[in-house]
Amino acid sequence: MRMTVNIAVAGASGYAGGELLRLLLTHPGVEIGALTAASSAGTKLGVHQPHLVPLADRVLVETTPETLAGHDVVFLALPHGHSAEIAAQLGPDVLVVDLGADHRLADAGDWQRWYGGDHAGQWPYGLPELPGARERLAGTKRIAVPGCFPTGGSLALAPAFAAGLIEPDVTIVAVTGTSGAGKSLKPHLLGSEVMGSASAYGVGGAHRHTPEFAQNLSAVAGEKVTVSFTPVLAPMPRGILTTATAPLKDGVDEAAARAAYEKAYDAEPFVQLLPAGAWPTTAATLGSNNTQLQVTVDADARRLVVVAAIDNLTKGTAGGAVQSMNLALGLPETTGLPTVGVAP
Amino acid sequence: MRMTVNIAVAGASGYAGGELLRLLLTHPGVEIGALTAASSAGTKLGVHQPHLVPLADRVLVETTPETLAGHDVVFLALPHGHSAEIAAQLGPDVLVVDLGADHRLADAGDWQRWYGGDHAGQWPYGLPELPGARERLAGTKRIAVPGCFPTGGSLALAPAFAAGLIEPDVTIVAVTGTSGAGKSLKPHLLGSEVMGSASAYGVGGAHRHTPEFAQNLSAVAGEKVTVSFTPVLAPMPRGILTTATAPLKDGVDEAAARAAYEKAYDAEPFVQLLPAGAWPTTAATLGSNNTQLQVTVDADARRLVVVAAIDNLTKGTAGGAVQSMNLALGLPETTGLPTVGVAP
Amino acid sequence: MRMTVNIAVAGASGYAGGELLRLLLTHPGVEIGALTAASSAGTKLGVHQPHLVPLADRVLVETTPETLAGHDVVFLALPHGHSAEIAAQLGPDVLVVDLGADHRLADAGDWQRWYGGDHAGQWPYGLPELPGARERLAGTKRIAVPGCFPTGGSLALAPAFAAGLIEPDVTIVAVTGTSGAGKSLKPHLLGSEVMGSASAYGVGGAHRHTPEFAQNLSAVAGEKVTVSFTPVLAPMPRGILTTATAPLKDGVDEAAARAAYEKAYDAEPFVQLLPAGAWPTTAATLGSNNTQLQVTVDADARRLVVVAAIDNLTKGTAGGAVQSMNLALGLPETTGLPTVGVAP
Amino acid sequence: MRMTVNIAVAGASGYAGGELLRLLLTHPGVEIGALTAASSAGTKLGVHQPHLVPLADRVLVETTPETLAGHDVVFLALPHGHSAEIAAQLGPDVLVVDLGADHRLADAGDWQRWYGGDHAGQWPYGLPELPGARERLAGTKRIAVPGCFPTGGSLALAPAFAAGLIEPDVTIVAVTGTSGAGKSLKPHLLGSEVMGSASAYGVGGAHRHTPEFAQNLSAVAGEKVTVSFTPVLAPMPRGILTTATAPLKDGVDEAAARAAYEKAYDAEPFVQLLPAGAWPTTAATLGSNNTQLQVTVDADARRLVVVAAIDNLTKGTAGGAVQSMNLALGLPETTGLPTVGVAP
Repeated sequence: MRMTVNIAVAGASGYAGGELLRLLLTHPGVEIGALTAASSAGTKLGVHQPHLVPLADRVLVETTPETLAGHDVVFLALPHGHSAEIAAQLGPDVLVVDLGADHRLADAGDWQRWYGGDHAGQWPYGLPELPGARERLAGTKRIAVPGCFPTGGSLALAPAFAAGLIEPDVTIVAVTGTSGAGKSLKPHLLGSEVMGSASAYGVGGAHRHTPEFAQNLSAVAGEKVTVSFTPVLAPMPRGILTTATAPLKDGVDEAAARAAYEKAYDAEPFVQLLPAGAWPTTAATLGSNNTQLQVTVDADARRLVVVAAIDNLTKGTAGGAVQSMNLALGLPETTGLPTVGVAP
Repeated sequence: MRMTVNIAVAGASGYAGGELLRLLLTHPGVEIGALTAASSAGTKLGVHQPHLVPLADRVLVETTPETLAGHDVVFLALPHGHSAEIAAQLGPDVLVVDLGADHRLADAGDWQRWYGGDHAGQWPYGLPELPGARERLAGTKRIAVPGCFPTGGSLALAPAFAAGLIEPDVTIVAVTGTSGAGKSLKPHLLGSEVMGSASAYGVGGAHRHTPEFAQNLSAVAGEKVTVSFTPVLAPMPRGILTTATAPLKDGVDEAAARAAYEKAYDAEPFVQLLPAGAWPTTAATLGSNNTQLQVTVDADARRLVVVAAIDNLTKGTAGGAVQSMNLALGLPETTGLPTVGVAP
Repeated sequence: MRMTVNIAVAGASGYAGGELLRLLLTHPGVEIGALTAASSAGTKLGVHQPHLVPLADRVLVETTPETLAGHDVVFLALPHGHSAEIAAQLGPDVLVVDLGADHRLADAGDWQRWYGGDHAGQWPYGLPELPGARERLAGTKRIAVPGCFPTGGSLALAPAFAAGLIEPDVTIVAVTGTSGAGKSLKPHLLGSEVMGSASAYGVGGAHRHTPEFAQNLSAVAGEKVTVSFTPVLAPMPRGILTTATAPLKDGVDEAAARAAYEKAYDAEPFVQLLPAGAWPTTAATLGSNNTQLQVTVDADARRLVVVAAIDNLTKGTAGGAVQSMNLALGLPETTGLPTVGVAP
Repeated sequence: MRMTVNIAVAGASGYAGGELLRLLLTHPGVEIGALTAASSAGTKLGVHQPHLVPLADRVLVETTPETLAGHDVVFLALPHGHSAEIAAQLGPDVLVVDLGADHRLADAGDWQRWYGGDHAGQWPYGLPELPGARERLAGTKRIAVPGCFPTGGSLALAPAFAAGLIEPDVTIVAVTGTSGAGKSLKPHLLGSEVMGSASAYGVGGAHRHTPEFAQNLSAVAGEKVTVSFTPVLAPMPRGILTTATAPLKDGVDEAAARAAYEKAYDAEPFVQLLPAGAWPTTAATLGSNNTQLQVTVDADARRLVVVAAIDNLTKGTAGGAVQSMNLALGLPETTGLPTVGVAP
């Protein structure tokens, strides 16, 4: 590794790619190399990402192994199913960070059921706050960046499973901003449709992030965790607010719940358990790599309820990717990552 | 009853009062009488409700038994705890429709726990789609209008309990627009705070609508139903999107679930079970008295999942109130109530 | 004409078509006939317009002279340049209401410059509040519905020109919701791009509505009016807020300005000059056929300033179309048109 | 001055104060000292600004000369009329940066007319991009931070006046997000009122920023400039989109206009003249200190039209303040100021 890490971003015209570049522009010791795209190749980045002023005149090149070659780190912000082939051609010495789903799931059957096609294998999972994750990320050359929903939901419930507070039957409803769907030209993503409206999708266990939740939480729980997951689209560009609940085990009370979350997160640089009585807002995390959360016990319903806020593009995608890259490169984990949100 | 029903609205400067007047303005055979307010008494309605053009020059008078006297119907859109005393002074022949919470709960202990103070007793509950409700509303002189969340959540789950599809342990997460909080001058309701942000509140069983959900669903289920309820504030003025889930009883499948909902709602004028595969949006219900919903079975998690959209101010408040008034007065139930939303 | 007017809507899957149907559903004595579309032909209307519940199961047919034949009234909500040919085949006895631009401009040169192709000729212009418009609309079989911006801007400034208050050199900046752009799948109309953002377009006299403003205002002024027009896209689904200013003629003061607007609009059913000191909001007009406006004099800058709010889809498109249809059919002008907005 | 500049922020619980702290947290060589407030004194900053995670546990103290004493730099984000007295007690060696209006206007008569009370005198004006501003700011101990609207409007038109392109009779319509109004508990700023709505205010030359525009532009023009200014509130938390037009002088064409703006801004670190044909969006500037603008000539109306986007809280308030502080302290002007926005 040189003193300055040279980085390529494949998929630089999209939302995930743009957020990566926003963060990398303030990351010390990083040099931004090739920016690649599909149909936008040949155009300037400024056309697609006018907020990335210092890179406005950079010309997008086509996404090929050749344009991506010669970089220390390659971020792949590509549609699902495109990463494995390109990664194979980049060689084992390049750090490949896959923001797509290709290498998240351990189980080939799960992959085939939810995404179709051949399973590309599992890479170290880029959610450092999960037990054992930092060890797996240190020095790795391959990182699977988590999905945005599993990031919020796993951070919301992992401490409860780690401390044995809840039964393995969780219900997660996550309200998301529209950028999670990418820059896709679909009617239901038009501003006219989205503003003033809330709507659910992928209901009834149909969303592809469902097995990823289950994989993460089952690993922490040490038993199979059943996940009922419903994503809700809300009229905001960014942010995920996750509400996660599960039946309490006998004898668990508010104090025990709070203690478990304090223990889990007191030393985490990017997770804030809010003071008792304060509840997170997605606005407070905007543009930051933070997860803000709160936990409580519903004594009547005998359920644990956790609410967690993240920025889906930062902690939920590009920020999580950079955080994991830092670990893989041996840099301080927080390098280049904001802990301050942009509000109001 | 005269040919034209004379109506007073107490709390005409607020959101619920404004929505009532919007609906009453197109209700045939209704005459809008006194409009009352608290601190806004003496000002013109147009200052507070510029969208109610035909009533712009009406002057608000103080909310007293005297100003409300002499009307056939009095709607009370007042803060909780103010309805009982006024209703007592209006006499038994006046139809009093209480949009507040005072007369919703049957149990005095529940009332004291959730609202404090003396229990004012229970009135016929204005959700005509619930079993037996129409009978109780016909000819009544007192109506307790449901809370906006229990309207959506009860309609979402009542058919499942009626058909014996689910266990009595439900989880409800409801995303709401800001008008549900009324025209309250609180920092977290400022546009700058709300836009671009989702946030939960009243988490962990702390929201006052929790016992109302439980009361409604338990009555249908014929057993005590436990409710875990979390409201989420989203950046939209109107609308509630309810996601309700519960464990399936053995042997229940998608077809059985769909059949139960078709049976429950096929004849309902204001409830639409959407075609299979379509999911509701709050935008489609805006300004209408409709509930649009969809039901599915999560076979992996063995849960029923229902998503229901309403306009919190229309079906969730003022529309539900007018619908119940129609029943009480012996008018056709749908009189004056839009079944067409305003979209996009 | 039969007692019930039979109506076809071409372009029923779009925003203008949807709004037309919303209004026609409450229009007494109207029967909704063929609903046509282009690529959506063969699908149910409910897929595209879930808010139009009573028409959810209607199947869209292709837009052809045959499917449109046999109706008393045909509304054409089609892309620019498609109306003339279809209208020619519908015969002279059918009332054809063109919501496109094809028949708005008198001058063939203007048409060619701004839209290209052959000029289809001018039809009676459907803005009844303009001087002489009602006479031209009465009994007509052809109506050109105004553009949404010229509706707001012409109503804002016509009284000032009629009363000789201002110089013929106007500046108009109009903030619009996104539905004005239709259901177009363009990146800049995505919710993620629109929310939290304001942006201008068609700047510097490039917007096609510019000659329409000039035509309307010049006719009232009796001299050529120069128009500097800038549209601004704002994060809301509906609404146009027009700010229009022009230099005052000598001696004109606030009282004269107000008097001119009172005179012009006191008898208009759909235009409200607000009480002095109150300023319009687009929210107050949502879903109604109203124009709410206010006028003032900037004594320092010696300019008249008028601010006008409309709903771009109602008064600005479909409501204006129905209002003009009423006049053409000899019905009361206000039939089926809401004067009450949906707020908040 | 020590190596590390010690900074106090008066008004730390508000939007301007919060944005200042957001920027100062990433400003190298700055130490954040006292954070003061009025009614919120005694509470933790995290209650009011949950996005400022590193300062969450800081306790707000009362705003007094004593709590502000002992700092190298004091930012005053206070209501208008409160700065002069406090500044007087801070001593001449402290750098006082006034984010209020107290020291912006040169003319005592203007001050009295627009704000009332005694004129506190004029301080060097913190808009470095204006001619001569940097010289006046270098080494100063007193800075008057411009109003948010005059920031956008002055940057939009100064080059045109400097190059003699336009007549001194300008029309400015500026669309603003709600945070410009501060965290004020006023009904029209509630989310329910703001979302889905555009509205003008301070119309007809009534907004207090009008004389500030005139002062800035007259200084550049070398003659009295008349300003017609209309602010429009739009449903977004942040951002100002300024549309500014003025009559062209004879012979001025697009090329001349573009050349003047290129000359003015090519070397400016925080102003971007976009490529021809691209128009600014407020979203692209969110959270950055950038001004993005575009200029064109309306050949028909013979007017120059400039559109400029800023973040009202960053370049329009706190970012402009830090930029000017940097100049006053002799630091590189861009220190601690983002040139990359947060989008989408």
